[in-house]
Amino acid sequence: MNSLASMLTPKSIAIVGASRKRTGPTGMLLDALAAYPSTPSLCIVNPSGESIDGLPTFRTVAEMPDAVDLALLLVPAAATETAARACAERGIHNMAVFSAGFADDREAVGTERQAALGQIHADTGVRILGPNSQGFLNLVDGIPATFSPSVMPAALARYFDGDEATAFARAKGKVAIITQSGGVGFALFNRGVARGVGFSYVISTGNEVDIELNDCLEFLLDDVHTDVVLMYVEGMHQPARFAALGARAQTAGKRLVIAKLGRSPAAARAAFSHTGHIAGDEHAYDAVFRRYGVVRAYDPDEMLDVAAALSLCPPARGRGVGVVSASGGSAVWMSDALTSLGLEVPVLHPDTQELVRQQLPTFASIVNPVDITGAAAVGAAQVLATIAADPAIDIVVLSTTIANVARLDDDRAALGALAADRTTPTCATWASRYFPASSVARRPSRCSCGRASPWSTRRPATRWR
Amino acid sequence: MNSLASMLTPKSIAIVGASRKRTGPTGMLLDALAAYPSTPSLCIVNPSGESIDGLPTFRTVAEMPDAVDLALLLVPAAATETAARACAERGIHNMAVFSAGFADDREAVGTERQAALGQIHADTGVRILGPNSQGFLNLVDGIPATFSPSVMPAALARYFDGDEATAFARAKGKVAIITQSGGVGFALFNRGVARGVGFSYVISTGNEVDIELNDCLEFLLDDVHTDVVLMYVEGMHQPARFAALGARAQTAGKRLVIAKLGRSPAAARAAFSHTGHIAGDEHAYDAVFRRYGVVRAYDPDEMLDVAAALSLCPPARGRGVGVVSASGGSAVWMSDALTSLGLEVPVLHPDTQELVRQQLPTFASIVNPVDITGAAAVGAAQVLATIAADPAIDIVVLSTTIANVARLDDDRAALGALAADRTTPTCATWASRYFPASSVARRPSRCSCGRASPWSTRRPATRWR
Repeated sequence: MNSLASMLTPKSIAIVGASRKRTGPTGMLLDALAAYPSTPSLCIVNPSGESIDGLPTFRTVAEMPDAVDLALLLVPAAATETAARACAERGIHNMAVFSAGFADDREAVGTERQAALGQIHADTGVRILGPNSQGFLNLVDGIPATFSPSVMPAALARYFDGDEATAFARAKGKVAIITQSGGVGFALFNRGVARGVGFSYVISTGNEVDIELNDCLEFLLDDVHTDVVLMYVEGMHQPARFAALGARAQTAGKRLVIAKLGRSPAAARAAFSHTGHIAGDEHAYDAVFRRYGVVRAYDPDEMLDVAAALSLCPPARGRGVGVVSASGGSAVWMSDALTSLGLEVPVLHPDTQELVRQQLPTFASIVNPVDITGAAAVGAAQVLATIAADPAIDIVVLSTTIANVARLDDDRAALGALAADRTTPTCATWASRYFPASSVARRPSRCSCGRASPWSTRRPATRWR
Repeated sequence: MNSLASMLTPKSIAIVGASRKRTGPTGMLLDALAAYPSTPSLCIVNPSGESIDGLPTFRTVAEMPDAVDLALLLVPAAATETAARACAERGIHNMAVFSAGFADDREAVGTERQAALGQIHADTGVRILGPNSQGFLNLVDGIPATFSPSVMPAALARYFDGDEATAFARAKGKVAIITQSGGVGFALFNRGVARGVGFSYVISTGNEVDIELNDCLEFLLDDVHTDVVLMYVEGMHQPARFAALGARAQTAGKRLVIAKLGRSPAAARAAFSHTGHIAGDEHAYDAVFRRYGVVRAYDPDEMLDVAAALSLCPPARGRGVGVVSASGGSAVWMSDALTSLGLEVPVLHPDTQELVRQQLPTFASIVNPVDITGAAAVGAAQVLATIAADPAIDIVVLSTTIANVARLDDDRAALGALAADRTTPTCATWASRYFPASSVARRPSRCSCGRASPWSTRRPATRWR
């Protein structure tokens, strides 16, 4: 068993330094753990000895009758070393440290605290996530060990008709996130769910006194629930190890999408004081990424679009894109955007044009892009299916404006069937970011939906090749 | 009085060819006209003579007792010429033609129909919007002459706590849209409202048998309610006239933001069959745009970001950006994005650093970007105000993740005050596109808010100069 497995699937958890206040990190942790389906046994460790939510409570870690699988440390930075030692002595093998004030601190004492935690790991072998971590979310088993409000069922349910009971299950999927910034990583997760991406794990590594990006990547490459890994990287401790894992991912057919930050002096400066990481040589990173087919992302939205395409669509056979829209202007704009990225919007084969002609009014465009107009008697999915069969077409894209939304709802099942066929990558863009949440919930399961903009769509499209 | 004024502010409207069905374009038109504050008198013209909603009804245009200011033609393409002639003969000076099937039609008859409409304009001087137009929305006077569902108060109210009664007034502002694609234009409007941009007019010109982009632009340059004009352009009939208007806009201090489509062969092909426009020479367009300070936009989201910046923020004095975040990762990413577009994220003056230091914990970054961390005792607005006073800082940007949203709500009034000061452009990005609608409604009135992504933010930021 990979050593991270016991960290990520704990059967028992201690919250060390839990505040008596029901708000803040303690409250979020307890709310999240209560709301998710798998509920490890919980206990509270707090010098006051006061119980929270009637949970078993102990004044010290040493007083706990049984060792737990995972300790979540909420104590202040200055008290973390003592608490962590106590956990190790109590036989607890995994801990996540949430506090900031370690390698990320301006004062020298921060560096000393970080070194002290490292020493505990070196002395005892206990695995440490953080410090300055936001913990993790294990969606495969339904275990949230994080105080990030973005994982709460209420925060996910708004994308699924407000249904909190099923939100967790519907947010599940084949994409994992490893992040040195908990804020960015959990925001990527929440926004990814909003656009129909499903996730397996989110792991926030923070200052990485022990567990680092590559430990998580290695775990995920062996994980059958994960096909695509998104990584937010400020700096890497072990670039050679990453290269080896990149090669392994390529062989295994798992795709890596990486945002490597710190290109600018200001960002490199900020990365160092954020999680203590050195940004490193950009060219070296690029070379490694190119070699192993890593997709480099420069924008959070683009990153999620690529994740959607890679996890929900089959690979494209070529660069020919068929565009269908009920708005001529939307079709025009999409064609320009796709072409400017090196994709093609070829004229359809005469036989295909004839088939499309029979489906549409005389003022519709039929050569590609296809403008079905507001007066089409058939649904967009039928036209998409027709042009997907054209030998020149490798990818089909449906581009809508807000005026077409109601009609599209009628067409949803057919659109889902087309996408589920997995012969041709099928992409749909909605004109309004406030497209009803219900439609996200009922999204065709294999269709990459959600982006408003042709400019945004074109990026993942090029990555399908 | 500019001739478009009587078109855009009608006191009486006839709906010619209204369907008896309460759904579809007729229903949308009537619903919209009923929902907006200014209600011109309405009548129905339909050969069946059946009344809709109890409105005055006539079998023919000739039977109408009084001429109206504006006729909205919903008759099929083949019947439009006759109806339009009848309107001209009845003394109606303005009409909007919604049907497709004119210059946009594959069959030669479409071209003939378009020519026939042009002849009516030439013979009688009646002003014609369209054909193939989606009409217009006049937000200054509250008159919706369009069947686009995106203008309905219900479609806007979801951005304003669901309050349909005030949605119209809150969507009002200083940005106008002129568009050859109604679908794209009204989608831009709706999405712009979602991110806090306010609008004066949306005008859909379609095939432009008479009224064309430049007529609308000329009207808007004289309009005191409009500061910024967004244009969706597939082709221009009178480029020399546009150049003259571009010069006038520059002199008047009004800003033009233009998406000129048809760069790719597929898009040029589609533009021609969409609205009958010839895409023209890209280099010539670029030269004219550069000469008159026109901002060229390549992405609908970018276009709205620029509109927000130009309409809600003062010009920036220079290229120095101060970044504040409660997420270190978000600050890092924003710094990279800003720098890659030629902006600077300079180290703060030592005096400013000292002031920031006093406000924040020791593990916060204080040099720029400023990471206030989750533990800051002061609100982000206070830190933004502090660094806005630094001589090296010309623009301030607040970057949040979903975890910071609750805290930010406490800080909203201070953020609004900072933005309202209009000394320094103030930009905020939200981590989640599903940020509560209520917060959009309560957006600081002079703050350009709404984008999730640093990559997106950087584009308008460079245009502030």
